[in-house]
Amino acid sequence: MTVTGRVRVEFGPGGEHQFVEPGTLVVEAAAHAGIELQTPCGGKGKCGQCRVVTASTDGLTPPDEIELASLSAEDLAHGARLACRARIIGPARLTIPAGSRLTASAILEAGLVEGVPPQPNVHRVELDVPKPSLADQRADLRRIVAGLDGGLAGCEADLELLRELPSRLRNADFRPVAVTLGNRLVDLRGAGELPQTYGCAVDIGTTTVVAYLVALESGRVLGTGSAPNPQGAHGADVVSRVEFAGQAPAGLPTLHDESVSIVNRVIAEACHEAGAALGDVYEVTVVGNTCMTHLFLGLDPHYIARAPYIPVVDQPLRVSAAELGVRVNPRGEVYVLPNIAGWVGADTVGVLLSTRLADSAGPTLAIDIGTNGEVMLWSGEKVLVCSTAAGPAFEGAQIRHGMRAAAGAIDHVHATEQGAAVRTIAHAPAVGICGSGLLDAVAALLDLGVVNAAGLMADEAGAAGLPAAVGARLGGEGQDRHFVLATAEESGLHEAVVLTQRDIRQLQLAKGAIRAGIEVLLAETGLKATDLERILLAGAFGSYIDRGSAVRIGLVPTLPLARINPVGNAAGAGAVLALASKAERERATRLAEAAVHVELSSRPDFQMLFMETMMLQSG
Amino acid sequence: MTVTGRVRVEFGPGGEHQFVEPGTLVVEAAAHAGIELQTPCGGKGKCGQCRVVTASTDGLTPPDEIELASLSAEDLAHGARLACRARIIGPARLTIPAGSRLTASAILEAGLVEGVPPQPNVHRVELDVPKPSLADQRADLRRIVAGLDGGLAGCEADLELLRELPSRLRNADFRPVAVTLGNRLVDLRGAGELPQTYGCAVDIGTTTVVAYLVALESGRVLGTGSAPNPQGAHGADVVSRVEFAGQAPAGLPTLHDESVSIVNRVIAEACHEAGAALGDVYEVTVVGNTCMTHLFLGLDPHYIARAPYIPVVDQPLRVSAAELGVRVNPRGEVYVLPNIAGWVGADTVGVLLSTRLADSAGPTLAIDIGTNGEVMLWSGEKVLVCSTAAGPAFEGAQIRHGMRAAAGAIDHVHATEQGAAVRTIAHAPAVGICGSGLLDAVAALLDLGVVNAAGLMADEAGAAGLPAAVGARLGGEGQDRHFVLATAEESGLHEAVVLTQRDIRQLQLAKGAIRAGIEVLLAETGLKATDLERILLAGAFGSYIDRGSAVRIGLVPTLPLARINPVGNAAGAGAVLALASKAERERATRLAEAAVHVELSSRPDFQMLFMETMMLQSG
Repeated sequence: MTVTGRVRVEFGPGGEHQFVEPGTLVVEAAAHAGIELQTPCGGKGKCGQCRVVTASTDGLTPPDEIELASLSAEDLAHGARLACRARIIGPARLTIPAGSRLTASAILEAGLVEGVPPQPNVHRVELDVPKPSLADQRADLRRIVAGLDGGLAGCEADLELLRELPSRLRNADFRPVAVTLGNRLVDLRGAGELPQTYGCAVDIGTTTVVAYLVALESGRVLGTGSAPNPQGAHGADVVSRVEFAGQAPAGLPTLHDESVSIVNRVIAEACHEAGAALGDVYEVTVVGNTCMTHLFLGLDPHYIARAPYIPVVDQPLRVSAAELGVRVNPRGEVYVLPNIAGWVGADTVGVLLSTRLADSAGPTLAIDIGTNGEVMLWSGEKVLVCSTAAGPAFEGAQIRHGMRAAAGAIDHVHATEQGAAVRTIAHAPAVGICGSGLLDAVAALLDLGVVNAAGLMADEAGAAGLPAAVGARLGGEGQDRHFVLATAEESGLHEAVVLTQRDIRQLQLAKGAIRAGIEVLLAETGLKATDLERILLAGAFGSYIDRGSAVRIGLVPTLPLARINPVGNAAGAGAVLALASKAERERATRLAEAAVHVELSSRPDFQMLFMETMMLQSG
Repeated sequence: MTVTGRVRVEFGPGGEHQFVEPGTLVVEAAAHAGIELQTPCGGKGKCGQCRVVTASTDGLTPPDEIELASLSAEDLAHGARLACRARIIGPARLTIPAGSRLTASAILEAGLVEGVPPQPNVHRVELDVPKPSLADQRADLRRIVAGLDGGLAGCEADLELLRELPSRLRNADFRPVAVTLGNRLVDLRGAGELPQTYGCAVDIGTTTVVAYLVALESGRVLGTGSAPNPQGAHGADVVSRVEFAGQAPAGLPTLHDESVSIVNRVIAEACHEAGAALGDVYEVTVVGNTCMTHLFLGLDPHYIARAPYIPVVDQPLRVSAAELGVRVNPRGEVYVLPNIAGWVGADTVGVLLSTRLADSAGPTLAIDIGTNGEVMLWSGEKVLVCSTAAGPAFEGAQIRHGMRAAAGAIDHVHATEQGAAVRTIAHAPAVGICGSGLLDAVAALLDLGVVNAAGLMADEAGAAGLPAAVGARLGGEGQDRHFVLATAEESGLHEAVVLTQRDIRQLQLAKGAIRAGIEVLLAETGLKATDLERILLAGAFGSYIDRGSAVRIGLVPTLPLARINPVGNAAGAGAVLALASKAERERATRLAEAAVHVELSSRPDFQMLFMETMMLQSG
């Protein structure tokens, strides 16, 4: 299949391919193929991190001055190019080194952590323990520990393991496999019983819980598991959960149990996928918003939900897996990453960690849109963060035909002369609209003149000025005025799938909240939107949306689309990094401590700003 | 009541008094009154640590050259004297500064730790926590920790406490009392709810378990509890306990449960005596021989009991009190002091710690005689330790009329023209003989010529050569030949209380084992018995025995009696020190690591030496 005028470009090692207009930048072509590249310098050719390798130079523009300055003659001779400078001019095959991929994608899609050497907190050591004699009367523990690098600091010990130590050591005929976790000896197995140790990184989302199984010696992601958060039954948003938690006596225990249960389920699923035994999983890292991690730990979120929004704890926590009820190795541990504030949680810290936001060359914005919208700004000197009450509109809640991104969801809309063309997930008949479709639909309606910048749908009089095919799709009155995206005949429902005036207001509230947060952070640093070199979009929503539509409605500041990069589940990727490397874990704590939290609710100018940012306009 | 020729000497602040022969050294007079003074220099007037204060100089010899050199003119003017130089010549009243007492006695009898500033692992801090506001959104834990010295290192937290933190903090109206244990926050109480924090030092003896309740802020001992070790039902000695532990499935769990139960009982008793609540006890330190601490922890002692005598662990252990079942504050911890080898336990480390053996000026021997006999030798450069299989003879086991030191036990015997005069505990009719009585009895029979150095009782022929009154007390044949200590009429039994040939053999075995251990350690360092400056006798037995008798039968090397010092329960005192001060705890670990363990069973010369040391002769 070819498309007239376009050229085919294929990317190795994965084999993704795409047809692009000649003249397209490699970085953009890659993005169209779903591959996000590292461009911390904002595509200026300064950092050299978006390097790709071409087998033949025919399909690309010749190296420009910046590439010639940035790449060595040898690299050039081997086909190295910068994806932010080279443009596609003919059919091309390009290889993308893992190190050039954005971290979160590289971690979770390519399944490895490039540039982060594994430095797990768990160590597996095959020992040859000297047998006791009258000339060597050392205690069992001491003779085992002598074979471990650096011995064991401190004097903590797991009593249950010590109780089995003499028999385990002798059953293994003094050639056991020892497992340490931090400075604790946590396991002793027979030779060959434990070829590999595992950890699990868990992202507890308000809506979805995901687990990544990691082989600790390599840092590779070998399996994933995910499931809806069952707490959703008590309310889609965080505040409803907190209210439910406050219902004595069973509220908090119920939410806690549900959280632990679902974490156990996704861990088991990830282990099953990888063929790993639960007992070989020794550590679990956890991210999530502050309320989600509190509920997981059984901590009271009461004071998070009301001003001044105080969490019980913001430091990282190490907790016994058994004490918490997490079913991995019974001597395993759970490490919950630090949070920054009551509404800026460990998930945001995970994003800061995996995106390397604070290593960006110039001002960079990161936005994680889930049930809430956390905004992070690297000013070039410091990271500012805030939480915006975006609400769950982007997840389909409170939208007439809103739904999750599942089969039959309208996920893309674009303006046509006939009104709007829609695409549905799995090409199924439309049954609703998901977040990315909502964004596209509003952008298309703006383009069509059906909706104005204030978010108002054309009334009867206005409809008359529209092309007939477009105007015919309008109907209803007031908040129920609507635009038909799929007719009753086209849809998989017995009715039309529509976008209502009320839906647009919901989108404006969500969009306005996020954009107001962006503007506040920019104002705090004295930066303007035009100073931004890049915008990173974290989370599932950020990966699926059409960036053009996001700019069109003003959800994010106007930037060339190649500099607006979806980074996937960056929060989960942060949990993987913290699992794979103690240095990354310490880095996460430093990032959390250094981040400047800006509390929007205490700013007198916020409401005024919010009114402005609800406007549907780019800028 | 006066005694002709003797003079009265009274000691402050306790008011103990004694009648002594004129010319008696003050240090000896004090010892007769039950007060053991510090004489690390061996009574040479070098160290000045045995300082006492006299109200009037009339009762003492004038200061000699050594005292004049050692004490300042001002000290002398205030009545200071050296107890190892000054002699009693008339009625005297002397005050003994607490610092002059031997440490173990000072700790456990005077109830304080002189010269050891309290440096507990538990801290109680009255906080005034800033209330949250939009300008101060720190997490509850962080704002509490900010008020603690040095904050909290690491990220360990007690989940149960965190779960109650928000309500506890607010119930205390942000003025709580915080308790930290190491780097963990373990409690948060309302103001005034916790005036004082406590700890408990526990000595788990094979025969008796003792607890000392310590006020952690002052380091003072406020209460004690003691009870027989209920494991005694499964055998008096350690080896029987290990054998019982090996009886699957209930052996080890039974012994473990009994150990924890009795520890709970003595802790509760000590708390009751001091009026302290169990919930206000945050830390428990434990000493005991290696098998006893293993059983307390539920660790398998199987490999301790047979060559090459390997314990599971020799390092100090920190264990959750709740996990172990120790009923103090549920977030409290148990700290088990390190052991040195399978048969040289944390109790020996406690003795090394509290006696300051390794700070002695010259070669010093310490002996802890319990169910086993541990021998420690400070050579001037290092500490050597060994364990001797003394057996429980000194505790009355395997002796025809042997018994514990209780009412009616013959505890002192001395030779008279009529045979032997006995003293019983509580002046009750004799019903048996305890360890100190056994030692005295054999010494007296040696003096009377009833028993020879080989331990053989005079036969019919030999008895004929004895004074008639003495010979008349002999009877029986072979191993049953015996000497009557109390006739059937004198005794509280329906029969005579006797000492048999078999009893003497048992004593010889016990005495020989200990003395052989002493000789091996001396040989290891190239020292001779005459090089010793002091001998410290630890444990209850060491406190009660007549030192003259111990020298007479050769249990210990011949030294002037003033240089043979009972030091009381030095093991328990070590547990108190480790509780009162982290520096002491670290010192204990260093002492355990530095001690050179000499394994007697692997020495080819041991049996030969043992045969010699079984001889009943001083030297």
